[in-house]
Amino acid sequence: MIKTIEWTKDGIRMLDQRLLPGQETYLMLRSYDEVAEAIKKMVIRGAPAIGVAAAMGIALGASQSVGTSVADLEDDLLYICDEMGKTRPTAVNLFWAIERMRATFQRAKSKNDVEEVKKILVAEALAIFEEDLAANRAIGKHGGPLIPDNATVLTHCNAGALATAGDYGTALGVIRGARDAGKKIAVIADETRPFLQGLRLTAWELAKDDIPVTVITDNMAGHVMKSGKVDAVVVGADRIASNGDTANKIGTYMVAVLAREHNIPFYVAAPLTTLDMSLQSGEEIPIEERDEKEVTHIRDYQLAPDGVGVHNPAFDVTPNHLITAIITDKGVARPPYTESLPKLFAETNAAGG
Amino acid sequence: MIKTIEWTKDGIRMLDQRLLPGQETYLMLRSYDEVAEAIKKMVIRGAPAIGVAAAMGIALGASQSVGTSVADLEDDLLYICDEMGKTRPTAVNLFWAIERMRATFQRAKSKNDVEEVKKILVAEALAIFEEDLAANRAIGKHGGPLIPDNATVLTHCNAGALATAGDYGTALGVIRGARDAGKKIAVIADETRPFLQGLRLTAWELAKDDIPVTVITDNMAGHVMKSGKVDAVVVGADRIASNGDTANKIGTYMVAVLAREHNIPFYVAAPLTTLDMSLQSGEEIPIEERDEKEVTHIRDYQLAPDGVGVHNPAFDVTPNHLITAIITDKGVARPPYTESLPKLFAETNAAGG
Repeated sequence: MIKTIEWTKDGIRMLDQRLLPGQETYLMLRSYDEVAEAIKKMVIRGAPAIGVAAAMGIALGASQSVGTSVADLEDDLLYICDEMGKTRPTAVNLFWAIERMRATFQRAKSKNDVEEVKKILVAEALAIFEEDLAANRAIGKHGGPLIPDNATVLTHCNAGALATAGDYGTALGVIRGARDAGKKIAVIADETRPFLQGLRLTAWELAKDDIPVTVITDNMAGHVMKSGKVDAVVVGADRIASNGDTANKIGTYMVAVLAREHNIPFYVAAPLTTLDMSLQSGEEIPIEERDEKEVTHIRDYQLAPDGVGVHNPAFDVTPNHLITAIITDKGVARPPYTESLPKLFAETNAAGG
Repeated sequence: MIKTIEWTKDGIRMLDQRLLPGQETYLMLRSYDEVAEAIKKMVIRGAPAIGVAAAMGIALGASQSVGTSVADLEDDLLYICDEMGKTRPTAVNLFWAIERMRATFQRAKSKNDVEEVKKILVAEALAIFEEDLAANRAIGKHGGPLIPDNATVLTHCNAGALATAGDYGTALGVIRGARDAGKKIAVIADETRPFLQGLRLTAWELAKDDIPVTVITDNMAGHVMKSGKVDAVVVGADRIASNGDTANKIGTYMVAVLAREHNIPFYVAAPLTTLDMSLQSGEEIPIEERDEKEVTHIRDYQLAPDGVGVHNPAFDVTPNHLITAIITDKGVARPPYTESLPKLFAETNAAGG
């Protein structure tokens, strides 16, 4: 099992995804600000993984608070939560995790015992970690049946073990779910510029798992679909608006348009924690613009001419009408999403989930 | 003026495009097989440039023949033509240039004077070079009026000076034509994996020419179109079938589908030498599959896991129904291309062009 992130007695152990596949290096992060920096720098990435990392970072920071009263601890916690919220703007799991840690504190603070509250916060972060692993397994169970036997599935970016707490992943969870149900599945992975999550991460984790994978450059997606090589597309999500519009890694929208052009089903796989019911549509999702160097350089090697203008949005929004279904840990939502998503969300909350 | 390729008394001088933009290095090629190798290795690339290089390479090889009779020279010439034809399979300008050199020999051989025939072959290669420069200027003149003032034009790969004999280019010829007619034009360049012709070459030559250029990764094309940032798409071509189906750099098909989705005009710019009237449709165009290392490595730096499967088609085919117009040196062809292209072709041949 791939362990993206782990809570240890020495700190938070994190696989440095910037160095994959060349080096499998684990960092030991010993303070909340090291965790925040790791999220910013994409040591860890993928919406569910960012949520888990933020929760663990907040628990770590709180547990290191030198405050002697619960009020002091609250000051520290709120500061840490604010800092964690500044790391990356698009993945809603980050804000969901921060909010859950804040709410946990609010429930716990009446105990008026600093050490006890710290323990509760750490337990909550570990619960978020465990729930994410379980959610991915559930996504695989719900999504696996949608993928036919002998299918070739195209995926974009990495929505696998490395994008989550570990193990199964979301989009790759659907693929693993199909595989674990006895189906023969092959994967085409878009390399996913500029950070190359497909070429570096998806290829790496699928090869470890003996799932056949062929990498293409992003601009080959249309050609392979036109050639009849793709039976389904499954991608992850960074934030899903209440109408089903989905923000995901830049290029996802392009893949969705191409899938529609070729009558190929296009599935989004994500835990319900990626759903942002406060947004009417994808237009409201903030899109992170990242450093130009991600495009102009590979490591320290400059590819582009000096001073060239670069645009580097990290995400795009796929409108709901291009999405065949949204596969969640609580079931599969179908259009119209303005009905199916609120229903899933309400059922889950009613069930205390 | 950018000089992609030049005939000199010492040999054929060629800008090594693999090293741009970091280094502006010119190679001096002193034999036909060095030229063939340069085409294969993409020292020079772009359909019109490949045609010019092949013609010059054949002229160089023929002029170095030690044969003492015209029959000996013919043997050498046919061998050289065969070798040149094995370099790259998709760009039809290569085969057009080879055929033109062969036909020139056939017309000249009755002179029964080895040195005279060699001179005629060199003169023909230089004529092909000059005609390509003129064709690009004509493409700019015909295409410029299609681009509105203050337009932002998206282009894929490099169909500029570097893809032709030099100077104007084909797709960038249209942009330069509009600019030279007094319009303010900005360019968005797809970086164009795996060889990064957009990031490395288009950005370099437009910056030299003071045309504002912003580079995006290929997977951002959909997002920038959806954001309303693109007014027109102009691309080059490696081979155009008689029905208008167009083979061009991998990813062009994707851009065409996205342009249609966003009601953005999609133009192909190419000299008539890129038209292959012998093909009924794009299905018949051979698509080159290139070395996997182009995808898995940047220079010698390995990005992908060891042994990962890779698909690396160098071109794709855009069906005619996605093409708004084909801008040639002899005029603009509009749908239905099965009428307009044969008409342009017949007019040109009738005019001795």
